[in-house]
Amino acid sequence: MPTIDNFELKALPDAPLAEGQARVRNLWLSVDPYMRGRMNDVKSYVPPFQIGAPMDGGAVGEVIESRNPAYAVGNKLLHMAGWRDEAVIGAETMAQKLPALGVPDEAWLHNLGLTGGTAYFGLLRVAEAKAGDVVFVSAAAGAVGSAVVQIAKLKGMTVIGSAGGAAKCAWVRELGADACIDYKAGDVLDQLTAAAPKGIDVYFDNVGGEHLDAAFALARQNARFAICGMIDRYNDGGALTLKYLIRTIPARIRMQGFIYTDFLSEMPAFVQEMAGWVLAGKVTARTTVHDGLDSMVDAFLGLFSGANTGKMLVKL
Amino acid sequence: MPTIDNFELKALPDAPLAEGQARVRNLWLSVDPYMRGRMNDVKSYVPPFQIGAPMDGGAVGEVIESRNPAYAVGNKLLHMAGWRDEAVIGAETMAQKLPALGVPDEAWLHNLGLTGGTAYFGLLRVAEAKAGDVVFVSAAAGAVGSAVVQIAKLKGMTVIGSAGGAAKCAWVRELGADACIDYKAGDVLDQLTAAAPKGIDVYFDNVGGEHLDAAFALARQNARFAICGMIDRYNDGGALTLKYLIRTIPARIRMQGFIYTDFLSEMPAFVQEMAGWVLAGKVTARTTVHDGLDSMVDAFLGLFSGANTGKMLVKL
Repeated sequence: MPTIDNFELKALPDAPLAEGQARVRNLWLSVDPYMRGRMNDVKSYVPPFQIGAPMDGGAVGEVIESRNPAYAVGNKLLHMAGWRDEAVIGAETMAQKLPALGVPDEAWLHNLGLTGGTAYFGLLRVAEAKAGDVVFVSAAAGAVGSAVVQIAKLKGMTVIGSAGGAAKCAWVRELGADACIDYKAGDVLDQLTAAAPKGIDVYFDNVGGEHLDAAFALARQNARFAICGMIDRYNDGGALTLKYLIRTIPARIRMQGFIYTDFLSEMPAFVQEMAGWVLAGKVTARTTVHDGLDSMVDAFLGLFSGANTGKMLVKL
Repeated sequence: MPTIDNFELKALPDAPLAEGQARVRNLWLSVDPYMRGRMNDVKSYVPPFQIGAPMDGGAVGEVIESRNPAYAVGNKLLHMAGWRDEAVIGAETMAQKLPALGVPDEAWLHNLGLTGGTAYFGLLRVAEAKAGDVVFVSAAAGAVGSAVVQIAKLKGMTVIGSAGGAAKCAWVRELGADACIDYKAGDVLDQLTAAAPKGIDVYFDNVGGEHLDAAFALARQNARFAICGMIDRYNDGGALTLKYLIRTIPARIRMQGFIYTDFLSEMPAFVQEMAGWVLAGKVTARTTVHDGLDSMVDAFLGLFSGANTGKMLVKL
């Protein structure tokens, strides 16, 4: 588990822009669980953070100075130079101009961005969930999980969420879930057995551990598991004990890991469908908003203690 | 772990045949690990054995009396009324007349039957293994594993087997495996790391446990695991601890359980390709043959102590 001592807030002088660069003032910064993996010095799907160098991550910012004809002052960009108040966007920075769809700026950091897209592609493409399926989703009050719940209901599925505590569960049910189990209130497998007496067709995994094992226990024939995150393993790196993994064979379970960027080519179709849902109020988000760059580390560490309902953001 | 006391050899009187039935004298009986699952009173892909009723399983027999126009005396049948010396084949018994391909009778109980088909469909259809892939297969000296090794080599893959002991490993290499690790001689992960320094694309799992975890540790991007058996779990029913399961996400591992009969519709294509290989001597089998119905239980229990190289059979 990282602590505040692993981080340092540093003031750097403004460098003049080179040809092709633009300067943005960041408005919204994202903290996401995958960033924990980038604190380990291992090869993974995104390179590790470097000690002493600025961290980065998703952000929405407004162009305040530009030597790039593609970006005018006042344009808003979704980009990867987060974890700072001002950023220089060069050719090497992942950045896109935000289309004027009428959604709030920060939606590009949740339902229209990383977390909404992860939910959408994981549920519909990786797990191939379809109308009539019984879907179980862990961390259902989180940013990804809450989007999974809503997309699954819009597509005609039965949805059972899991969340920690009565308040989070109440919200998951408000989002449309047919049931929500409170993993802090009792055994996950017992509760899931009661909520899904005929078993589950799809499991959307955000946590690993006891939830994953319960899904193995209750998987129906040809069940599909989309493995998105195992947040309970990110800090301890420890082993996972599964009692029901052996059901993989008789139930012909398919378990598949994925990340959001596997589906870059399908992004336009996702943005189109999701923007329609967001504008119609059919997919909503709760955000836990921290204020100011000083609060960035608190926001990040809060991801691992269950401090957030919905998407954790920092507003500058 | 079952013992000899769980079994009883019983003489039953010959019943006269009804219209549509045929009587066969069995020549070869099969014992297979999946039968252990049928000794538990749980719902699975094949119904449990009933206490006091005859067990059944794969067998090849010769028709000695017939009231079914489809079967003439002298025909040989592959059927599911095994675990006995004579059987009555009715409409409810899975049975097929053996085509005259020139292969030995018992081949229909291994390379042209359950074990060869499991290898073929698991490797090529479930894991979608293709030329150039690095394939890891556990229990590579077993009936299924040895077929996996040979099919993978015929299809242009690199193959690393695992087996228990130097003699079995030598045979696995004779079958064409590029390497074979001896799981009794050291740590599986260490040995697999040395044999596959760049990782693996496919894992064909016959055992679960330490082998499965090593496969998670060394899986390359988009690796596929075909989960065929977890023989080390069949008797203890115990939990499996995996240290590297979390690599499912960054490596986008796909793990899929399956059984042979999922591919019934593709059986003719399999028999055609496999019969060609068997007749050309390109896919061979070792068999461990027990003699006589009295030895059936010993043969079956031997499956769980590693007593067999290749396919375990009983000849009557």
